[in-house]
Amino acid sequence: MPRMTGEGRRRADAERNIEAILDAALDCISDQPDVNMTAIAKAAGVSRVTLYAHFPSRHDLVAHVLDRAVTTAAEVLDTETLDDHDPAEALTRLIRSGWQILAGHRNLMTAAHDTLPPAQVRSFHNTVLRRVEKLITRGRRQGTFRTDLPQTWLVTIFYSLLHAAAEEVTAGRLRQRDAADVLATTILSALTPPTR
Amino acid sequence: MPRMTGEGRRRADAERNIEAILDAALDCISDQPDVNMTAIAKAAGVSRVTLYAHFPSRHDLVAHVLDRAVTTAAEVLDTETLDDHDPAEALTRLIRSGWQILAGHRNLMTAAHDTLPPAQVRSFHNTVLRRVEKLITRGRRQGTFRTDLPQTWLVTIFYSLLHAAAEEVTAGRLRQRDAADVLATTILSALTPPTR
Repeated sequence: MPRMTGEGRRRADAERNIEAILDAALDCISDQPDVNMTAIAKAAGVSRVTLYAHFPSRHDLVAHVLDRAVTTAAEVLDTETLDDHDPAEALTRLIRSGWQILAGHRNLMTAAHDTLPPAQVRSFHNTVLRRVEKLITRGRRQGTFRTDLPQTWLVTIFYSLLHAAAEEVTAGRLRQRDAADVLATTILSALTPPTR
Repeated sequence: MPRMTGEGRRRADAERNIEAILDAALDCISDQPDVNMTAIAKAAGVSRVTLYAHFPSRHDLVAHVLDRAVTTAAEVLDTETLDDHDPAEALTRLIRSGWQILAGHRNLMTAAHDTLPPAQVRSFHNTVLRRVEKLITRGRRQGTFRTDLPQTWLVTIFYSLLHAAAEEVTAGRLRQRDAADVLATTILSALTPPTR
């Protein structure tokens, strides 16, 4: 391996700092959504000057943290919805993983809602939603999901029940550990073609 | 019938005026949620002085209009959920009637949301919701509705899908005339016990 030039070493340092900042920011925000930049710099082991050199504003940092979380979520969800899974099985896996991801990122969502424009925050939901749409299309084609109701409505069922379950957990009427199972059972019942 | 005394006649006049004002107010608000008191007095055929003698504020008038609409809705819904109907049939009737009532009172809900405290506006939803709860309890007891998911969650399914359908209609993704059927089909599928 060739010795690094000064320029190369500076770039490697910068990349390592950016990774450390994004990791620390996700940890800090997950503990406390309104955590400030000073606390994040400290947790990342960098100076405030270094932090602001890479992320000129809190808005900018939260946007990057969200972006990275969305990318990771997309990778996880893609393995769950692979075309060789039965659509009902894939939907159950998608619900379980999607639920865990959303639950794990609840404080990040709060921070994002407080900091970023709504369209940017929706990128997270859209990551799940696009895969749901694709999966429902495939399930209808294969006869696993019903075709007597519109496709858009089946997607709406998924999304509104997911949202309702989150609210029920927050209100203390549904246990977090039961939620994914309750959701999967309900959504599959609603999407399965009527018998007879 | 005895001749009315002056006092009796005044009371009869007042009652007639109140009915006319409430009828006119519902009509006016249904056309235009932010209609003003002058337009309502004119539509009711009474003076502004008479209007304000009975309803000292717009807030007061909207509250009474909402209250009367809720009472009427409760009467309609009670005939649909009678104990001698099969629970699935009663739920379908409740959804169709409830949907028509909510659709017919959409502008009233807007006016109420703009004028009254949220708890007062919820009285409308609670009128539907209490009957849904009772019906789901009966359906679970009779084996028509599933018992493998919590009762509170079945009520949440009903409520959140109703809400979602209203949003889909507003967004132009679901036709108003299809909504009640789509809702009834979806909710019954979600509430029916799993076979096997």
